[in-house]
Amino acid sequence: MVAATSKEHSGKPVHLVHPHLRGLLRLSFSSIDEAMRKDYELAFLSLPHGVSKVVVPELLEGGRRVIDLSADFRLKDPELYRRWYGWEHPAPDLLRRAVYGIPEFNRERIREAQLVAVPGCNATSTLLASAPLARLGASHLIADLKVGSSEAGSKPSRGTHHPERSHAIRVYSASGHRHQVEVMQALADILGRDVRVSIVPHSVGSVRGSYASVHSLIEVDEEGLIRELVSLYAGEPFIRIMPRGTYPDVRNVLGSNFADLGCSVDDGRASCFSAIDNLVKGASGQAVQCMNLMLGFDEREGLLIPPLRP
Amino acid sequence: MVAATSKEHSGKPVHLVHPHLRGLLRLSFSSIDEAMRKDYELAFLSLPHGVSKVVVPELLEGGRRVIDLSADFRLKDPELYRRWYGWEHPAPDLLRRAVYGIPEFNRERIREAQLVAVPGCNATSTLLASAPLARLGASHLIADLKVGSSEAGSKPSRGTHHPERSHAIRVYSASGHRHQVEVMQALADILGRDVRVSIVPHSVGSVRGSYASVHSLIEVDEEGLIRELVSLYAGEPFIRIMPRGTYPDVRNVLGSNFADLGCSVDDGRASCFSAIDNLVKGASGQAVQCMNLMLGFDEREGLLIPPLRP
Amino acid sequence: MVAATSKEHSGKPVHLVHPHLRGLLRLSFSSIDEAMRKDYELAFLSLPHGVSKVVVPELLEGGRRVIDLSADFRLKDPELYRRWYGWEHPAPDLLRRAVYGIPEFNRERIREAQLVAVPGCNATSTLLASAPLARLGASHLIADLKVGSSEAGSKPSRGTHHPERSHAIRVYSASGHRHQVEVMQALADILGRDVRVSIVPHSVGSVRGSYASVHSLIEVDEEGLIRELVSLYAGEPFIRIMPRGTYPDVRNVLGSNFADLGCSVDDGRASCFSAIDNLVKGASGQAVQCMNLMLGFDEREGLLIPPLRP
Amino acid sequence: MVAATSKEHSGKPVHLVHPHLRGLLRLSFSSIDEAMRKDYELAFLSLPHGVSKVVVPELLEGGRRVIDLSADFRLKDPELYRRWYGWEHPAPDLLRRAVYGIPEFNRERIREAQLVAVPGCNATSTLLASAPLARLGASHLIADLKVGSSEAGSKPSRGTHHPERSHAIRVYSASGHRHQVEVMQALADILGRDVRVSIVPHSVGSVRGSYASVHSLIEVDEEGLIRELVSLYAGEPFIRIMPRGTYPDVRNVLGSNFADLGCSVDDGRASCFSAIDNLVKGASGQAVQCMNLMLGFDEREGLLIPPLRP
Repeated sequence: MVAATSKEHSGKPVHLVHPHLRGLLRLSFSSIDEAMRKDYELAFLSLPHGVSKVVVPELLEGGRRVIDLSADFRLKDPELYRRWYGWEHPAPDLLRRAVYGIPEFNRERIREAQLVAVPGCNATSTLLASAPLARLGASHLIADLKVGSSEAGSKPSRGTHHPERSHAIRVYSASGHRHQVEVMQALADILGRDVRVSIVPHSVGSVRGSYASVHSLIEVDEEGLIRELVSLYAGEPFIRIMPRGTYPDVRNVLGSNFADLGCSVDDGRASCFSAIDNLVKGASGQAVQCMNLMLGFDEREGLLIPPLRP
Repeated sequence: MVAATSKEHSGKPVHLVHPHLRGLLRLSFSSIDEAMRKDYELAFLSLPHGVSKVVVPELLEGGRRVIDLSADFRLKDPELYRRWYGWEHPAPDLLRRAVYGIPEFNRERIREAQLVAVPGCNATSTLLASAPLARLGASHLIADLKVGSSEAGSKPSRGTHHPERSHAIRVYSASGHRHQVEVMQALADILGRDVRVSIVPHSVGSVRGSYASVHSLIEVDEEGLIRELVSLYAGEPFIRIMPRGTYPDVRNVLGSNFADLGCSVDDGRASCFSAIDNLVKGASGQAVQCMNLMLGFDEREGLLIPPLRP
Repeated sequence: MVAATSKEHSGKPVHLVHPHLRGLLRLSFSSIDEAMRKDYELAFLSLPHGVSKVVVPELLEGGRRVIDLSADFRLKDPELYRRWYGWEHPAPDLLRRAVYGIPEFNRERIREAQLVAVPGCNATSTLLASAPLARLGASHLIADLKVGSSEAGSKPSRGTHHPERSHAIRVYSASGHRHQVEVMQALADILGRDVRVSIVPHSVGSVRGSYASVHSLIEVDEEGLIRELVSLYAGEPFIRIMPRGTYPDVRNVLGSNFADLGCSVDDGRASCFSAIDNLVKGASGQAVQCMNLMLGFDEREGLLIPPLRP
Repeated sequence: MVAATSKEHSGKPVHLVHPHLRGLLRLSFSSIDEAMRKDYELAFLSLPHGVSKVVVPELLEGGRRVIDLSADFRLKDPELYRRWYGWEHPAPDLLRRAVYGIPEFNRERIREAQLVAVPGCNATSTLLASAPLARLGASHLIADLKVGSSEAGSKPSRGTHHPERSHAIRVYSASGHRHQVEVMQALADILGRDVRVSIVPHSVGSVRGSYASVHSLIEVDEEGLIRELVSLYAGEPFIRIMPRGTYPDVRNVLGSNFADLGCSVDDGRASCFSAIDNLVKGASGQAVQCMNLMLGFDEREGLLIPPLRP
């Protein structure tokens, strides 16, 4: 049983809402209530932050496995929720059971998980480029992000109004970005020690892409850094390490689940770069990768889509 | 006497080469030889790096004043030329006489200069955002730049081929960027001490804009940083400091000589942001600003053009 | 006395709402009531369609001259309002007095007008390219328009959401476009006979620009058509006729009040092309051009802004 | 045996030239000579116009089947080649044997063909939108096209230099477009009578897409036109007819082999619209569709790629 739910479009064929899918699938949106009663093993939740936390417990009690794309189950510490999101977490025990859905670091835990909290695009690109520098000893990382407009979701707003956004280059959420704490938690989990991460995200005029340039002030040579990248991500099906002297470009991952990684070093400064499609590896693609692990499928199933270039 | 020179288009009306100027000026391109023989006080040179150094001495000997937009006279130390550009500088004495054309820091020297070497877009945006952090004690600055395609000049190349560049987000010249040494020289001149600057430039899909996000690991509060920005640039006709909580956007300076500056601070990290139009404040606009100073005009003459938004 | 009014931003400095204007003007928004009581000769109205018709009579009775950018006074025939806009026009006598604000065809009437109804971008670009073909005998013109996203105004909507609009090429309002009747009225006024005009507008991914490709099935040679263009628009300060074999490009008029015109002919088909910036010649620039005429200024006053290219 | 040939990159892994394909295929470019000696049944040729005509005869003599993406075998009449391309066709007999590779009209002939000449993007989009109008009696069609920059190929040029092309809206090849004659030949073949087609192509700022708005001055009602579209393309796997009142958008076909078709009618004017991705249905996708027919595969094999939106 497959169902797609929508509050607004319940009853309508999917292709009337998403006309690019006409001719590719025969499916109508269900209401969420209707869908929840159906027979299924696993649910993807793309609900607004704060709504997932209400729905997830019911699903888990019904024996379903859940892949949640909201922020509701990403942090382990209920105290952090209060500080960063402004609400008391209603299910602190679920926080402990939830697995952070980044296969590159949590593959085995994802396989067994009943609840997976998939990181968003900026946390994913930042984490992938931060880990190698952190492992080489960096204690404070500065992640300068460049992100496309689709990151803001499908609801029109002033900041994503085409005439306003088209030629924009601007920093936003310049202090205290929410995803910092999430990335720091993941790094602490990987390394067993704390690392500071400052995320400084920028809006650029593209539609898709999250590009993390993670900078650190450590002494390392470029070969050492590449070696670290290679050893950290060896065998990962969706990580591509760029050959020395070439660098990731969002252009090369558009429409795909790939994360391209590269690095550069210069007189006391070492940086790693990661390029992902925010709507694939930074969202639904990563969620499908998690599902493949949870259900015992080939991890690449449905995800070996060639990037669209140019 | 006004003349515009062109090797390729000598003899042609300017508006046949630049059709957007049709109806706005009656001027044909001269050859450089023809132009040099005319009667004029000051010359702008937009020659390829390495060619200016041949033409400038002759102009200066003829008593002209020169505003050079190439890199040929930007560094003070002939040794640095050899290292970064690969050639022996033929006129080391002129390096000493040349004034670095950034009015915000060299206004009085520009007024008197016979030879002004105007910084390019990336050095300008980086320097404007670096100075406040350096003055507050930062010893190593990381300048993460985002630049539009017009920075690469008017000659088509693979990297600026429209299908390739359009959705690009990618780092380039990721190590040892030439403009680092230029910015470090300027900062040493301002501060009287050395500061390390790592420039990490990125191509984004815009046509115009150079946006510098300069990061440092210093302890300062946001108010202190804004105060530093305000005190450093008080009275500057083309610097606009953004009110607290708002940030520069390339969108707001397009087509103008303005540089918008802002900052953010977060738990051990302090950043300044500057947005300029690379073809105005980062090139010809800044050159005209220098000319206004050299010829005793109002510094804003011809430059109070409203930015084009949206 | 100069005043700018805003319902939403009354009391705020203009540059807080339009940050690109910071440093260029010292003006705060007034409420419309406050502004109307001030001492002034002429008012520009940029009100929603249907609101102007309420405000205009009061202004005219107070002895002001009015330049209205809405659609409320563009049609001469009250019956057409009912058909196309769905409402009974409350001031049919004012329709007769209002002058259609296209200087190229109504210059003398604009000078004397108390009320000028400025055509919008699509009507302007279509009319400029239609007139030469109509004068050469075409009886049915097909105007295929390509327009940028800023035409839709400053209010975000699904169609101008950046991720949706960015790579779009699509027809909209594909039948019975409102501006058809306006252009037909203007052509009838110029020619003394009726011509059919079918407007078929398309959204493209640009921010600015209205490009009209007006096609007709008439037998004419290219030289004859260029001659017609030249004779029709000779001496017009903002019309630029492209030399034979070159064509208008929105690129060449961005930010300016110019309308570039060209043509092509091929085996029974003759087309004229016009490129304007929808926010200048298609809106406020044309309104200022009308004001210059009404107040006896040089028609080009404040409008000789070089287009921004690239 | 699969081989990909390249003169410039012979010997290099494909993913070094096309880095977006890294990790997706293990293949190095062969030289054309080397590839021709291999064992294979069918060759795709993407050679410059004028080169295919030299290679094709040799391939056919060797018993291979050929899908040619150049213009060399598209016209049936050698005389037309001389007029439009400026050269004498060396193999006029092959012109007669070549099948025009548009499955919607030539499906059965393609199955049996030894040589298929695939139409390019503009001919494809124009033909698909022209056929219904021509069948309803139109005698002169005006095809106003809007095309993305990737149509010009991978070689950088002034017209596709990113700063120049980005905000462009301009007509090009405004008279006597080469593809006119090709579309007219195809229509004559379908209808058994001659129809005039005027193609007027425009460059817009997108990377991908060929959008044909085909206009005619015929009396037909919208329902009749939709009925014609539906009956003409019933069962076509890659044609999607838009529901009444909605229209094709390039946005909905990006990256896919779909052609979306719609129409509008207004007081003596009838138009059909078609949107394709110029690099898929307008090139390689259509070629693969032809190959599937030639080799007896499911026609959709390898082509059911969901369009990338947004």
